[in-house]
Amino acid sequence: MRAAIFRGERSIEVGERPDPQIHEASDAVVRVVRGCVCGSDLWYYRGINQHKVGSIGHEYIGVVESVGAAVEGLAVGDFVIAPFTYNDGTCPACRAGFQSNCASGGAFGNGVTDGGQGEKVRAPFADATLVKVAGPPDGGFSDAQLASFTALSDVACTGHHAAVSAGVKTGDTVAVVGDGAVGLCGVLAAHRLGASRVIALSRNPSRQAVATQFGATDIVGERGDEAVEAVLHLTDGAGVDAALECVGTDQSIETCAGITRAGGMIGAVGVPLYERFEYRTLFWKSIGIKGGVAPARQYIPELLDDVLSERINPGLVFDFTTDLDHVADAYAAMDERRAIKSLLTLGQP
Amino acid sequence: MRAAIFRGERSIEVGERPDPQIHEASDAVVRVVRGCVCGSDLWYYRGINQHKVGSIGHEYIGVVESVGAAVEGLAVGDFVIAPFTYNDGTCPACRAGFQSNCASGGAFGNGVTDGGQGEKVRAPFADATLVKVAGPPDGGFSDAQLASFTALSDVACTGHHAAVSAGVKTGDTVAVVGDGAVGLCGVLAAHRLGASRVIALSRNPSRQAVATQFGATDIVGERGDEAVEAVLHLTDGAGVDAALECVGTDQSIETCAGITRAGGMIGAVGVPLYERFEYRTLFWKSIGIKGGVAPARQYIPELLDDVLSERINPGLVFDFTTDLDHVADAYAAMDERRAIKSLLTLGQP
Repeated sequence: MRAAIFRGERSIEVGERPDPQIHEASDAVVRVVRGCVCGSDLWYYRGINQHKVGSIGHEYIGVVESVGAAVEGLAVGDFVIAPFTYNDGTCPACRAGFQSNCASGGAFGNGVTDGGQGEKVRAPFADATLVKVAGPPDGGFSDAQLASFTALSDVACTGHHAAVSAGVKTGDTVAVVGDGAVGLCGVLAAHRLGASRVIALSRNPSRQAVATQFGATDIVGERGDEAVEAVLHLTDGAGVDAALECVGTDQSIETCAGITRAGGMIGAVGVPLYERFEYRTLFWKSIGIKGGVAPARQYIPELLDDVLSERINPGLVFDFTTDLDHVADAYAAMDERRAIKSLLTLGQP
Repeated sequence: MRAAIFRGERSIEVGERPDPQIHEASDAVVRVVRGCVCGSDLWYYRGINQHKVGSIGHEYIGVVESVGAAVEGLAVGDFVIAPFTYNDGTCPACRAGFQSNCASGGAFGNGVTDGGQGEKVRAPFADATLVKVAGPPDGGFSDAQLASFTALSDVACTGHHAAVSAGVKTGDTVAVVGDGAVGLCGVLAAHRLGASRVIALSRNPSRQAVATQFGATDIVGERGDEAVEAVLHLTDGAGVDAALECVGTDQSIETCAGITRAGGMIGAVGVPLYERFEYRTLFWKSIGIKGGVAPARQYIPELLDDVLSERINPGLVFDFTTDLDHVADAYAAMDERRAIKSLLTLGQP
């Protein structure tokens, strides 16, 4: 099969990889319909993080092409959303609803396992990992629906995880630090969970526009200390009940610490690149911090219901669409900040 | 008036201090009935933390002796419990229920403000700070009740804060790291909030006994890596839903990180003396951490109801009682671990 292959810093090529096969009886093979590029993919693209030469892309949706003998809940032809990590569904972490910490789990597209930026993927523990989408209705899914399903594979769930980890509830004032796809989905999640005020930190007009569509009530264009001042001013000096940290740098987490009220929470989902930050900073203000790698598998069913009923439209984070042949462009568009998030069309349902 | 005075490392004397007066119209002066020594008092006693030469003791209960013109909710003769910090009750932190972060607040017994280890205390913002205890009934309060009221001044609320910050709820499995008075009160709080299993880490028989009285279902005597192994073994490898960090050292917080399940919480109330610990350790296990300085003022009314109805008896943490003349003994008994916590009898209601 054809798939995007990471060759090294800023080198993404389309090449041949072995056709995925059923290895374990609990496997399924999925023919990919949509994949996409993640903000975290840019870290190895830019040479900041390590990544093995090989398969890439941890987000995908598609159609089940074959199933192992032990797979019970899925059949050939089913349309599925894959969370960005696979999980066995039975270990203590899975049972607690934190499938991204599954003892037998792992990530798609890590150079070794198949990636979502390719024509097909072997999905381990298919029953526990993949989420079947009922339908498609007559006429199939719309492009907008397919985009939103793809967002559920990671960013919509990761933004949701930030808000859930911060305990966002009805009436809260929430600020979102980071205007990438995850941050924008954090805005969506805070609004969806009932926050009465959602302050988006962004200085980019197209991202501000999506934030507003997702429910942001205020936009703050400042950064660093000036952003802290601006948010405190907006909240009459009180600070926000919850800050969603969707970047992972020292500056972003310090901004969160500065704008959160005493006793508030930081929902932290930005991959931690910070070097100076430590929890003690928060202790004296009784600010909590929770987050980590989103258990997308736990959240997809609930968010999917809202996508299908058109209550939310997380697919709006995709503002650049191309095909597998142009996957290098998909990376470059995000790297150069021409795109919020790039969608890859690999097939039809 | 007579009061305990800190002179320097391991030097506590009884001396004269000016009689407290009403300075602000919102002040009250309280005649102290019981004071006590806190685990955190040992830090300056041992020369680990700085403390100004002067007044000491941040925990006290007593009788209102005089009130300023603006005090409305208290009258001379009222019996009151003081939280260990005073607060104005009106700032954003107070309104959010985090009075220990009050913008105009401060601590008792910091060398400058009056301390609870003395005959009298001026309490700023008396209406907002002090909690009136209805009664006393015929015959007055029992010694056991007075001890429990004194525990509400700090340790019972701090243990409760650990459990509340960790989100302990019905059915949870909770471990408590630290078997000082705060840790024991953490056991009490976890049990009171409905935890079905409370694992107390303690190797001291008298502290184990109190932990059991407070609701501990399991005792783990190991420390460090062996403690982690023991708790994981007790929980079939899953780890606990919540770990209450009631020490503040690198070892204790690493133990908490090791025993908490993916997606669980650490309630951290140990004054942070750790040097190596950073939040990133927790990120990858999706473990959250929250705590800080307990808003005792927020918790006292609710816990007081349970003391008065004899549902809880936090005063059991006091296993050494003496008077002001022997305050140096009260410190020494705790320093030498002869006592869990020392109570000081300063007067009668």
